Amino acid sequence: MFRESKLRSIVKTISWRFWATLTTISLVLLFTGQTAIALSIGGLEVILKMIVYFVHERAWDRFKFGRHEVKPFVLWFTGLSGSGKNELSQKIYDRISHNGIKVEYLNGHTVRKLFTETGFSREEVNSHIRRVGYLASQLEKHGIFVVASFLSPYRDSREFVRKQCGKFIEVHVASPLEYCRTRDKEALYRRAEKGEIRNLAGYDAPYEEPQNPDVVVDLSASGVEEAAETIFQEIKNLL
Amino acid sequence: MFRESKLRSIVKTISWRFWATLTTISLVLLFTGQTAIALSIGGLEVILKMIVYFVHERAWDRFKFGRHEVKPFVLWFTGLSGSGKNELSQKIYDRISHNGIKVEYLNGHTVRKLFTETGFSREEVNSHIRRVGYLASQLEKHGIFVVASFLSPYRDSREFVRKQCGKFIEVHVASPLEYCRTRDKEALYRRAEKGEIRNLAGYDAPYEEPQNPDVVVDLSASGVEEAAETIFQEIKNLL
Repeated sequence: MFRESKLRSIVKTISWRFWATLTTISLVLLFTGQTAIALSIGGLEVILKMIVYFVHERAWDRFKFGRHEVKPFVLWFTGLSGSGKNELSQKIYDRISHNGIKVEYLNGHTVRKLFTETGFSREEVNSHIRRVGYLASQLEKHGIFVVASFLSPYRDSREFVRKQCGKFIEVHVASPLEYCRTRDKEALYRRAEKGEIRNLAGYDAPYEEPQNPDVVVDLSASGVEEAAETIFQEIKNLL
Repeated sequence: MFRESKLRSIVKTISWRFWATLTTISLVLLFTGQTAIALSIGGLEVILKMIVYFVHERAWDRFKFGRHEVKPFVLWFTGLSGSGKNELSQKIYDRISHNGIKVEYLNGHTVRKLFTETGFSREEVNSHIRRVGYLASQLEKHGIFVVASFLSPYRDSREFVRKQCGKFIEVHVASPLEYCRTRDKEALYRRAEKGEIRNLAGYDAPYEEPQNPDVVVDLSASGVEEAAETIFQEIKNLL
């Protein structure tokens, strides 16, 4: 947040009036050749223009044409591990932030690194998602767009987040389990097979699919760029 | 966040130039009585003033005088139940928000209502405070001031929050236990005496006092207004 001091505004106003009126005086002098008339017009202009400018500003303040409030949203990506939600959400985040819009990117991996005590039981996952969703809703409330990417396998915590937010857009990255297992960048499925980890959504824990997602994409059926474009089409009118 | 469309800016610019130049033409006509000269000056002014205005704006853009970035802070109230931290923090929040500053008020009671599963064990309290602190730091990162009022009895979670935030100001509302017990608005001490609740900080659970608080106030030693003024003096230069 930048602020300009009152003194800066006053000095800038005087500076502008000086150069603007100097222009007027020069023009009148050029056309009439009479210094007295040029200076008189310049002197009166200083006073009159300030009054006209003030009235003009006040009138435009009442005139709503072309002025609209930008309402932020929370764009929530849910999907299995390996579905491609992080890659897609990062692309969308980059595209939004290039627009000069204030936007925060929340991602399951980075947030969990701060709260390592958070486990993977249903209760812990739900509590985690609700906490993150509350954070997203607070940012939204203060005009910040949010892109969030969380496995978020349970319907009730996703619905809690939806209720907290003003405008909640749910993106289901619905790449099927078999496809996700072939990507498996974090080797979670391989570790689950070996019994090293438990409660992996879609594998040995439930993944409750969204019932009314706003967008559905599937990386086994389309490329990343195409899927990102599908999502962007859904939000572009809200930016 | 409000945005003005480009069309609005263009129409407003034309509107301003129309009225401003009409003023100039009228002035010249008044002084010279010559319509041709008045219209010539007006015509040239339209072009010249736009160039001068543009150069003036660009020059001022490089001129840093009187322009400063407002950096938000997280003002964190900690203290026993009944110490007066909620009353004080509410007063400070009201005062900041009246300044036209974007500020969020986070309060232990209202946040816990959303996350009723949160218990009062050391682990749960620490996790809760760290989550809330992370939320505060995210708001601060996006330019929102935060006033937070949480019992927050443990040093390690308060220090976690301090590290997450850019500018963390710790207010210790250090009213002594005996004073807090006489207020006891929520009847927590009475319920603890009867054995109805446990883990009440300062009573049957620790309260780890801040080691280097930025402000210390004590409602057993000064009135609410005086204590609020002490706190406000600490932050007023940061607003």
